[in-house]
Amino acid sequence: MGKLPASFTVYGSSGVLKFYSELLKLPLNFSPNVSLCDVAPNVEFQVGKASKESGRAQVEFLKGALSDAKEGKIDGVVTLPINKEAVRLAGFPFPGHTEFLAHFFKVKNFGMMLANERLKVVLLTTHVSLREVPDLVKRERILNKLELINSEFPGAKIGVCALNPHAGEGGLFGREEIEEIEPAIIEAKTSGIKAFGPFPSDTIFLRALKGDFDVVLAMYHDQGLIPIKLLGFGRSVNVTLGLPIVRTSVDHGTAYDIAGKGIADTGSFETAVRIAIELLKRKMS
Amino acid sequence: MGKLPASFTVYGSSGVLKFYSELLKLPLNFSPNVSLCDVAPNVEFQVGKASKESGRAQVEFLKGALSDAKEGKIDGVVTLPINKEAVRLAGFPFPGHTEFLAHFFKVKNFGMMLANERLKVVLLTTHVSLREVPDLVKRERILNKLELINSEFPGAKIGVCALNPHAGEGGLFGREEIEEIEPAIIEAKTSGIKAFGPFPSDTIFLRALKGDFDVVLAMYHDQGLIPIKLLGFGRSVNVTLGLPIVRTSVDHGTAYDIAGKGIADTGSFETAVRIAIELLKRKMS
Repeated sequence: MGKLPASFTVYGSSGVLKFYSELLKLPLNFSPNVSLCDVAPNVEFQVGKASKESGRAQVEFLKGALSDAKEGKIDGVVTLPINKEAVRLAGFPFPGHTEFLAHFFKVKNFGMMLANERLKVVLLTTHVSLREVPDLVKRERILNKLELINSEFPGAKIGVCALNPHAGEGGLFGREEIEEIEPAIIEAKTSGIKAFGPFPSDTIFLRALKGDFDVVLAMYHDQGLIPIKLLGFGRSVNVTLGLPIVRTSVDHGTAYDIAGKGIADTGSFETAVRIAIELLKRKMS
Repeated sequence: MGKLPASFTVYGSSGVLKFYSELLKLPLNFSPNVSLCDVAPNVEFQVGKASKESGRAQVEFLKGALSDAKEGKIDGVVTLPINKEAVRLAGFPFPGHTEFLAHFFKVKNFGMMLANERLKVVLLTTHVSLREVPDLVKRERILNKLELINSEFPGAKIGVCALNPHAGEGGLFGREEIEEIEPAIIEAKTSGIKAFGPFPSDTIFLRALKGDFDVVLAMYHDQGLIPIKLLGFGRSVNVTLGLPIVRTSVDHGTAYDIAGKGIADTGSFETAVRIAIELLKRKMS
């Protein structure tokens, strides 16, 4: 990270870092622009095992970074995964980072953006069954997300996915385009948001790659994740929209099965750092 | 097509070819391995206009090729688009090529495969609204498609998509994986079909690109079409499975708005010809 135009603080544990440095024979040399905030110097843990102690430490690292962000000491946070079992054992009551962040910053209108170096996608719905999706494709909810995207990326051209194949083919394969998506886009346009669509989801991403759209709003998880993962070749990141700070995250879990083996792929983390810097530049310009 | 290892017959109209040759100043020089079957020498038509006469000619071209295929004179058919309005005016009662082909060859178990140079995807459901999809994800239907794929590509490794995000996360976001897809895969395996999954659809296509699977079975239109179109950059083709002949098709429409301008992209057609040859080789080997 020495070459990146920012300075970095690692919120972690000197004890844990020292342990892995010795295990993997990797020297602990931080670049001059990287420092350590030693949140919990000593953590009792076992390699690749979820425990109450390691879960508590994970939550402490996160809280350390967020407190500094709240006080304005740092501009953004890049998160690595937390182990859901471990943090549950430690009494962490949130399903994931995102919900905790929203709670921490007392934010109600937040959203999840997936990004790789070529594409930015926001999801209208996330972790629900496909059967539940059509009833969640509602005008108010879509308008809400379009406003959220526009407040984070003022003036961005937003391409909106259709729900149904061929965008419903004029109502032949579903009416959500006609009854919900199009009215939301029309209403967003009246308040100056550059929203376009709904377009069939098998061509909208090609158009985004060509530059027609800066951000794509997808109606459901796999509609947005398929192109992000395919084009990112595993190097995609999550971005939380609606927070007072920039927050990006890797798109993978803790992978305890390969912990301590020195074979983890750092691609998603590197991309998360780069995209956080890109978003900060945009916010500051 | 002169360099391709096959001989070709164009089922068309000498009058139409002559008209466009003069309009676009393109000489009508067929390679030695290309001949014309002059199905309808004279067709009354206007450039870029759907009419009963042009629709009737389109159906005649198609029937000419299919009759020769039925008689064994040709091994496969590559179709260009028909104009739905024109063929409707001519009294053609089928929604598209595929249904007509199934009717012509009296075939009941047929399927649609999308392919580009890197990926082959078969769709479980096609032109229905997303709301209707979950109720069509049924064990028997999946098994049926797996058998169809295996009969066309004997021994192929088939990756099966999940319907829900994270493949349902153990039933948390939908139970179709547990109740329908997995049982179908298990049953297929007992009859020697190499079927695997269900896998989350945001990672299965990357695995197919790496060679884990020869064909991917997608649960719905956009799940299969998003990766096909993104990776094919518009150069994807349709393949009809279950016919006694090889049949491939371009993946676009007639585009009457650019008719006669000489700017049509022939990429999908070229890919359709190449993939037809690949499939014929496989059938003959």
